Amino acid sequence: MKNNLEDYLKSKKETVDAALESYLPGVSSVPPIIFESVRYSVFAGGKRLRPILCLASAEAVGGKAEAVLPAACALEMIHTYSLIHDDLPAMDDDDYRRGKPTNHRVFGEAVAILAGDALLTEAFHLISSRELFKGARVESILRVIHELSQASGYFGMVGGQVVDIQSEGQTVGEETLYFIHTHKTGALITAAVRTGAILAGATEEQLHALSQYGRDLGLAFQVADDILNVEGNREALGKETGSDTRLKKVTFPTVMGLEASRQKARELVAHALTHLGSFDEKAEPLRGIARYTIERKS
Amino acid sequence: MKNNLEDYLKSKKETVDAALESYLPGVSSVPPIIFESVRYSVFAGGKRLRPILCLASAEAVGGKAEAVLPAACALEMIHTYSLIHDDLPAMDDDDYRRGKPTNHRVFGEAVAILAGDALLTEAFHLISSRELFKGARVESILRVIHELSQASGYFGMVGGQVVDIQSEGQTVGEETLYFIHTHKTGALITAAVRTGAILAGATEEQLHALSQYGRDLGLAFQVADDILNVEGNREALGKETGSDTRLKKVTFPTVMGLEASRQKARELVAHALTHLGSFDEKAEPLRGIARYTIERKS
Repeated sequence: MKNNLEDYLKSKKETVDAALESYLPGVSSVPPIIFESVRYSVFAGGKRLRPILCLASAEAVGGKAEAVLPAACALEMIHTYSLIHDDLPAMDDDDYRRGKPTNHRVFGEAVAILAGDALLTEAFHLISSRELFKGARVESILRVIHELSQASGYFGMVGGQVVDIQSEGQTVGEETLYFIHTHKTGALITAAVRTGAILAGATEEQLHALSQYGRDLGLAFQVADDILNVEGNREALGKETGSDTRLKKVTFPTVMGLEASRQKARELVAHALTHLGSFDEKAEPLRGIARYTIERKS
Repeated sequence: MKNNLEDYLKSKKETVDAALESYLPGVSSVPPIIFESVRYSVFAGGKRLRPILCLASAEAVGGKAEAVLPAACALEMIHTYSLIHDDLPAMDDDDYRRGKPTNHRVFGEAVAILAGDALLTEAFHLISSRELFKGARVESILRVIHELSQASGYFGMVGGQVVDIQSEGQTVGEETLYFIHTHKTGALITAAVRTGAILAGATEEQLHALSQYGRDLGLAFQVADDILNVEGNREALGKETGSDTRLKKVTFPTVMGLEASRQKARELVAHALTHLGSFDEKAEPLRGIARYTIERKS
């Protein structure tokens, strides 16, 4: 099973990479620097977790992965924009991301801000490209745009990032920690799962179960990320470990300790799996991804 | 006629302001600072040119202004996001905008970046709110999202801003000047006109004429803006005049001189009006706005 999942992730990552390559303009477009900057971060070696969740979720309800590819790529573009802006000097001031200098270190702050702006904007351009979707209803595409923008805006990702920044150096409790993580990373991960399912024609019952899976998975992923930031090594992560400590970030290990965090992650994954109880073997990749979340080394 | 236009602009501005007030969450939402920051810039006294163009365009093809209000407000949100990001220290480093300290001067750089991100994202949330549109076809809403994101992204507004920044202090010709202005401001102004018309059910012939009107108007507006930046006074503009000179910005007066710029603006307005030749009196506000473009003092 483990090898099956690895093959699945590898194959889907290739599909997503090829699609992103085809959707993003080449660097001969004008002005070249914005396309270089956008491509630099989009092809910086991301795991493509969000697009793969979108594809796997479409398959789990009987749809075809290829039919939802534009939406999967839009999710990755939104994720990449958020990383570029998070790394800016005014935010986390990070010099490295995935083992490479951050966007603003290579292209300067102005272009990095604009590359993030462009990726966010183009995500909505891509996901509103009706002709790229095979068989999705127009109503479903519009619904996905509505949900994705909600998950990315001030009631989702942006709100989480604001509280994260405001909490640096503060003593905060579990409630704030949950707010940050369910908004900053959880909302987009849940949206990824819902997006694939909605476009593939899921029933409202299936959607409800997948949302709960997404919510638990998103939180488990973030707890695991926090643990890796303490324990991981620089090569595997591609960034300085302990950077959360440097920035006095609120994390699960700092709030509840390392061992309790590990236990929490295991519980969340077990919980995520229960929501897939009524799905057949087509949901096996979603199950594998949940388990992988706490086994990964980077 | 002049009074009629003034009444029209005032009444439509009030309609847009009230709609923005109703769409934007209050500052008791969590985290309050992002809603304070967003509201600060949205209600900083903008003329609401883009939303009014959207409403006037819907009326010109026989539609109702109220039916396209969410799209009109989304246009203003995208415009406001672009101003917040343009003013950042890494970009134009402006301290004042419309007579008030810029967003980052009040809320800090991190929150200003995120307020811009949020406004851009929420614009797509608003414009994909199907239930808010009265009578628009789902296909039309999706088309508008597609066009608006194209006009705002790297092939539109963002691309124009990149070239603008890269051109500071450089000697550039008319071609670059046109690229900057047609992309940085022209694309969104044309999109505003098209958006209202598409949602109101315009024919492709009407849309074509309105696009050409929008293109000429957008350029006229920018030439007039450049002239005001040289000639205007601080009170009326709410920002330092001569700031283009300080930043060594590429402007029409620097490239072609002041008198030729005035002549150019008049020609563009005359040209914009010819494209409305086949429209009846319902297009009178669009005609008035074109004339107003070169008569305004701020």
